[in-house]
This record gives sequence, structure tokens and C-alpha cells, in this order.
Amino acid sequence: MSLHKPQTQLLYPELEQALEAGDLEALEALCDHLAVEDLAELVDELEASLRVVFFSKIPLQTATDIFQQLSLPTQSEVLDSLPAAREAEIINEMDPDDRTALLETLPINDTKQLLSFLKPRERAQAQKLLDFPEDSVGRLMTPDFLAIRQEWTVARAMQFIRENGEDKETLNDIYVVDEKGRLLDDIRIREFLLSAPECPVEDIMDGQYTALPAMNPQEEAIQAFKKYNTLTALPVVDEDGLLLGIVTIDDILLLEEKETTEDIQKLGGVEALDTSYLEAPYWNMLRKRVGWLTGLFIGEMFTATAMSFYQGEISKAVVLALFIPLILSSGGNSGSQATTLMIRAIALGEVTFADIWRVFRREILMGVGLGIILAVIGCLRIFVWGAAFHTYGPHYMILGMAVGVAIVGVVAWGTIVGAMLPIVLRRLGLDPATSSAPFVATFIDVTGIVIYFNIAMFVMGGRLF
Amino acid sequence: MSLHKPQTQLLYPELEQALEAGDLEALEALCDHLAVEDLAELVDELEASLRVVFFSKIPLQTATDIFQQLSLPTQSEVLDSLPAAREAEIINEMDPDDRTALLETLPINDTKQLLSFLKPRERAQAQKLLDFPEDSVGRLMTPDFLAIRQEWTVARAMQFIRENGEDKETLNDIYVVDEKGRLLDDIRIREFLLSAPECPVEDIMDGQYTALPAMNPQEEAIQAFKKYNTLTALPVVDEDGLLLGIVTIDDILLLEEKETTEDIQKLGGVEALDTSYLEAPYWNMLRKRVGWLTGLFIGEMFTATAMSFYQGEISKAVVLALFIPLILSSGGNSGSQATTLMIRAIALGEVTFADIWRVFRREILMGVGLGIILAVIGCLRIFVWGAAFHTYGPHYMILGMAVGVAIVGVVAWGTIVGAMLPIVLRRLGLDPATSSAPFVATFIDVTGIVIYFNIAMFVMGGRLF
Repeated sequence: MSLHKPQTQLLYPELEQALEAGDLEALEALCDHLAVEDLAELVDELEASLRVVFFSKIPLQTATDIFQQLSLPTQSEVLDSLPAAREAEIINEMDPDDRTALLETLPINDTKQLLSFLKPRERAQAQKLLDFPEDSVGRLMTPDFLAIRQEWTVARAMQFIRENGEDKETLNDIYVVDEKGRLLDDIRIREFLLSAPECPVEDIMDGQYTALPAMNPQEEAIQAFKKYNTLTALPVVDEDGLLLGIVTIDDILLLEEKETTEDIQKLGGVEALDTSYLEAPYWNMLRKRVGWLTGLFIGEMFTATAMSFYQGEISKAVVLALFIPLILSSGGNSGSQATTLMIRAIALGEVTFADIWRVFRREILMGVGLGIILAVIGCLRIFVWGAAFHTYGPHYMILGMAVGVAIVGVVAWGTIVGAMLPIVLRRLGLDPATSSAPFVATFIDVTGIVIYFNIAMFVMGGRLF
Repeated sequence: MSLHKPQTQLLYPELEQALEAGDLEALEALCDHLAVEDLAELVDELEASLRVVFFSKIPLQTATDIFQQLSLPTQSEVLDSLPAAREAEIINEMDPDDRTALLETLPINDTKQLLSFLKPRERAQAQKLLDFPEDSVGRLMTPDFLAIRQEWTVARAMQFIRENGEDKETLNDIYVVDEKGRLLDDIRIREFLLSAPECPVEDIMDGQYTALPAMNPQEEAIQAFKKYNTLTALPVVDEDGLLLGIVTIDDILLLEEKETTEDIQKLGGVEALDTSYLEAPYWNMLRKRVGWLTGLFIGEMFTATAMSFYQGEISKAVVLALFIPLILSSGGNSGSQATTLMIRAIALGEVTFADIWRVFRREILMGVGLGIILAVIGCLRIFVWGAAFHTYGPHYMILGMAVGVAIVGVVAWGTIVGAMLPIVLRRLGLDPATSSAPFVATFIDVTGIVIYFNIAMFVMGGRLF
């Protein structure tokens, strides 16, 4: 079966029919025929009532596998509609890391209720994972890993893997621990496959491993997987080096996607939605959008204040007002560019505070360069229109010069502010993405008005006034 | 060794000293002590001359492993400075997928020269991979995989893996092919480990696999790994189902990072840099930034044109001009929000063209809602200032009403344009990210002026003029 979504979609009517008719045989045939990921896609589209039938009728293991593939909001929707007995069965069967992901998104009372459904061993485990701080590596890990001892032979290790590997999330990496359970090494399964059975495990250890401290932020896990990119799982340890669990790369891929979405939304001046666009309720979405928008609006009000100081100049030379949006937006756009580049460069670790002067020099030159190019275009436009259509009165040459100089000034200012702000915010321990493009643009609007009118007054002197 | 970067950094002077003194023993001790990823980080910081010494002196396999961890620009820098013989050794030793990644970034003449350094078998392989279109799955794959036959037993398969697995990139997944080499199934290594040796391979096959067609875009590979998230490698096939190679998840993580960077840069109105911020040469960066900026500037010039139609109104009521930046930026900001949300939702597959009316209804309501909130704040400000400081003349109540209505109109307009544009662009087969926040803001600036002055003229009638 290859990557052809339509093929899977074609089976939707069949699934719906089997559920409506209560045809268990057809249902099981469908489940055998499709991968759980594809089944999950179909189930996602079912009406709530049919979904309940689906999750009640199919075998528990398959039900749980499919359940874990659903989005978190859908998972909690499904749980709400299932009979309590089935609900309990499914959450007892879930992988510990997927269970944590679900439990941490639920309201506190739902979490408590679900915990009470768990068998003692599972409950203790789930509770322990939830005890790690939010956004910590501990919340990502699964305690289902295989640990062996260095004094064993490869044959004994393989035997152990065969006997205990069934319910482990991955067998790609095997961990070596000492008698206290402290991590000594990680060994990829290929080493076992390629070594002689009588070889001691000690001989295939290289003592080189990377472990994630459980209390550290999840961001570190992403960075570690990108750096040590031949690994598909990383061990998690406590402060004594005790092996607590593993983080697998599939969770990292999804976590990375989630964090990217948050970053992009912040860049656009929206609070992170935490849910998909169409699933976000109207009022919730309004709240997340109105916050930044109101803040920016209040900031932008200072443009009216700033302009009121130059009301006299405007009334004497209305032509000056015509170029306000052009000049401000040039500064805003160059600032957006600079801040976006910088936020991403900081997120990728390419730029740190140590580079601030290098960035400063570079962006000053960049801002002046960009400003001159735009200023030339702007001047030409004013000269041509002024000469051809007399649009801008008799002093259009001087006006063109004033606008040109103002563009260089505002663009250079926008560039440098946009570039510096994220670095400074990061240094202060704040999120650089707060310096979103709209934020920078608003700041440039207010200050740009002052720059423009002062330059215009200086260049034009008494000529228009 | 746990995730403590400082520890690795502490070894930098040691490495430098060993290279300067030509102390081979110290060098090898360092190489044994550190993971290749950490060594690569140190090597990255070395001066060019010491880097040459490093890559010439250490064993070829280690040198190649470290070389492959370097960024592509650094890789080509290193190759340029190495003696031709060593250069040839290293590129012959590289993994096929890493080699393709390097070759495709080099100027055509360098690529040809490097190809001529390759041994016949490697050259044929590299050429074949480069023959796939840019950004296709084929360019990502490595032909180093293990394929077995369904009539074998598990024991024979394991024997085969042991004998042929040494130079394969991953042994986590094993592929079953027919006598023509067509893919029949993928089997995770755990199935072999957990099955009885005498069991036929056929019995552990489930016939469920996902294969990527080699000519399809790389974006599909990313989506497939996110969906089938328990896999660490995916098979690549040609149109006849012939197994050509595999794509491994480590390449996906890096590809995803690269694509996210491009998307974010486009959102900020910059052409994708294709290199890290500090490594991009000044002129190159200027070129990538000036393009969009000039386009936006020329578009924004229409604001001056639009405003010139209302010059008469402005000269009669300068107070109208004071609110231009405030009103335009509100529309621009709400448009930025909407477009950013929509571009991301489209990228994640949450919103498609089929949802356009749903999005339209939702964003109209959102835009009006957001507009009313901002309008109330704006009116209050004008009423209070007008009453307290007489800033806006005798008709400040009417002015406040006009500005308020204009804010609702421009914000609703900005929101709907920002939301619809990416969906329409996608439908036309264009990149939705082209509808960047600055682009939407510019469009709103020009149209917003017309909306504002018409509303103001209508609401205020002759009262100010």
C-alpha cells in the first residue's frame, strides 16, 4: 500500500456502513486491511455516535492504538462519550507517554477521574510522570525501555530482549545500567546483530552516550535529536544518573511541529492557539487575537499624538501628509524582515548575545543600503510626477529630497530596531518572538513620524511653510 | 557523558594544541573520547589551516563521519582546502544521501569535478541520485538498505543481516522484496528479534507498508513520517514498485527545520536565505531582502496616489490625517494575524479550499468583532481628548464616530483579505506564504485609505469641510 490518500478515503463508506449495521466481521476485515494511522484518519471523520460504536466493538489493543493516533481534543471527546468501563480499559492500555500527553491537557477534575480509573501500577507511573514540571523532558518520556548489564554476553542480552521486548515502544536502542540502575551506555540494536553471541556486552560499549536530564526543558530534547541525528531514542536520567525512561523521535517530530506553530503564530502577533484553526471556538480565538491587537492599537495611538505636533506643518503643506503611509510602511517592512530573520536565527542558535555588535554593524549597513535603494525609487517617482503632472507643487525637487532622506533614516532605523530587539529580549530572559513583526512595525510608526517631520522640516526649511 | 556543552567546549584548547604540535596520539585520544557530533562542533570552530591538518591526519572513517556532520557551506570550504587525494578519499567514503546533499548545493563545475573523483560504482550511484528532480524524495534517499525474501526463515534473514548489515545506514527496518526487487513489505527489526528462528519471514509480514514514490516532492516524506510516526525509515519506490532506497528520519528532522526556516522568512517578507544568518554574504543578503521590499514599496506608492484624491479634504480638516497611521495599522495588524494563522493552518493541512466558506463566515465575524473592540477604544480616546483638551476641534464627537466606523470597516476588511488570500493562492497552485504579513499590510494600506476617507466623508458630511 503506497501513499495514496484517496484509496483510504474510498473505504470511508464501507466503515460507516459496517458500524451502522453492527457488522463486526466487516469491521475486523477493515481493521486488518488498514494501518492504524489510516484507520485513525477515517475514525476522525465519523460522527460521534458511530465513533462510540467503533471504539466499543473492536479489540482493545487495536482500539487503543487507533485512539492514540487521534488529536488530543478528539481523544478527550471520545473518552467523554464512551461507557466508563471501556474508557478505563483504553486508558489502562495506553502507552505511558501518550497517556501523559492526554492527561496534561485535560481539566484537573477530568485528569483526577481518569487517574482513578487506572490500575495501581499504571496510576503510580502516570502520577510520577505528571509530577515532572510542564514542558520538561520528564513529561515526554516513556518508562518502557530495555536495560541490560555490562557483564552479560550478547547472546544473553538477545535472549533478554526476546523475552521482555514485546511491550516496549522501541527496540532500536538498548541501555546498559549498573546494579543501582544508573545509565552506563546506550547501544544500538545493530551492534548486537552484528556481534558474535559469546562477545561480552562490555566489549561493544563505547561509553559515549547523551542523556537528557528529566527536569530540563523539552526544547533541549529537540536540539539533542537534531544534533545526534542517528539516534531514534534518547535516555532520560535524574540528577544521580539513574535511568528513568526514554524519549522517542516520533514525539519529537510532533513537538517540533507544535512549537513551530506557536512561534509562527507569535510572529504574526497572535497568542498561540493551542488547537487547530477550525477547532478553536470563536470566543477563544477572539480572545487570543484581541490581546495583541489592542496592545498594538494603544501603542499606535501615539502616532496620532505625534502627528498632532506637526498639525501646523501639515496644514501649510498637505503634500507632506501624502507620504506618511509610504515612509512608515517602508520602515515597518524593513523592520519586519530584520526581526523575522533574527528571531529564527536565535531559535536555531545561529545568533547569540555575543554576536550583537556584529549584527549591529551588519544591519546598520543593510538598513542604509536598503534605505538608499528605496529612497532612489521614491525620489524618482516624485521628480517624474512633479515634473510631468505638477502633482506636488513648485518645490517638488526639495520635497523629493526630503522624502528620500526620510526613507533612508526610517528604513535604517526600522532595520536596526527590528534586528536588535529580539537579541535584547532574549538577553533579558524573555521570548524573542514577542518582538513580532506587528510590534516592530507599530514602534516604527510612532518613531518614524518624528523622524520624517524633523527631516522634512530641516531639508525644506521655510520653502513650503 | 550527558548534555553539557561546556564540557565539550573545554576540550577545544586541547584539540588546537594537538593539531599545532602535530601530536597524533593526543588527537586520536580526543577522537576516541568524544562523539562525532561533538567533535564536529569543535572542528567547526577551528581555523581553516588547522582544519586541513585535522582532516588529513585522522583515520578516514572518523574523518568522513565528522565531515558529514558539518554544515554544507563548511563542507565545501573544507573540501576546497584539502589536498585532492584526501578530498577524493572522503567523498568516496561518504554516505550516498549526505553526498547528494553536498553535490546538489555546489556550483555545477565543482560537482562535476567531485564526481570525477568517485570510484565507478560510487559515481554511477551519485549520478543516479542526482538525476532525480530537485526537492524530490529521490534526492533524499540512500540506496544502502537491507532487502530479504519472503520464503526465507527468520534465522536466515538474521544471518543475512549479520553478514550484510555493516555499512547500512539503519537496521531498524528490513525490507521484503520479490524476485524482481519489487517491495512487498517492511518489517521492523523487533519482529525478527521477537520471532522464533525457524518461523518463515512470510509469517511475520502484514502486507501493510507505506512507500514514497521517488519522484514525489520531499514535503510528502515529511508528512508521511509525521503520520506513520512509529517508523524511523520509509522505503522509496519507482513507478513499478521497485525498491530504490530508503529515507531516514534524521534527514527529515533537518529538512523540516530548513523548510520551516524558509516559511518563516517568507512570512517576514524575505526570500529564503538558504544559509545561516551570519554566514550569508552582505550583497547576497541585500539582494534577498531588497526584492520584496522594493515590490512592497512600489505597491505602497499607491497610498500617496490614493491620498492625493483626498488632499482637498485633508487641507480643510487636517485632523483627519492624524488618524491615518492608526487606522491603516489596525487593518494591517488584523490582516497579519489572519494571514499568518491561515498560512500555518494550510501548511498543517488543517484548512483546505473546501473550507473556504466556513473560513469566510468565521473571519467576517472575527473581523467585525475585533473591529468593534478597537473602535470602542479609539472612540473613547477621541471623546476624552476632545472633551478634555479640545484637541480635535468642536466636532470631535462626529470625528470619533467617523474614525470608529472606519476602524470596524478597515479591520474587517484586513481580516477577510488576510484570511482569504492564502487559500486562494494555494488554490491557484501558488505558495500561500507569498501572502506574507507585509504584503497583506501593504494591500490594506492602499485600500484602507479609500475606505477611511469615504466613511469619513459620509459620516461627517459637510460638518468639517
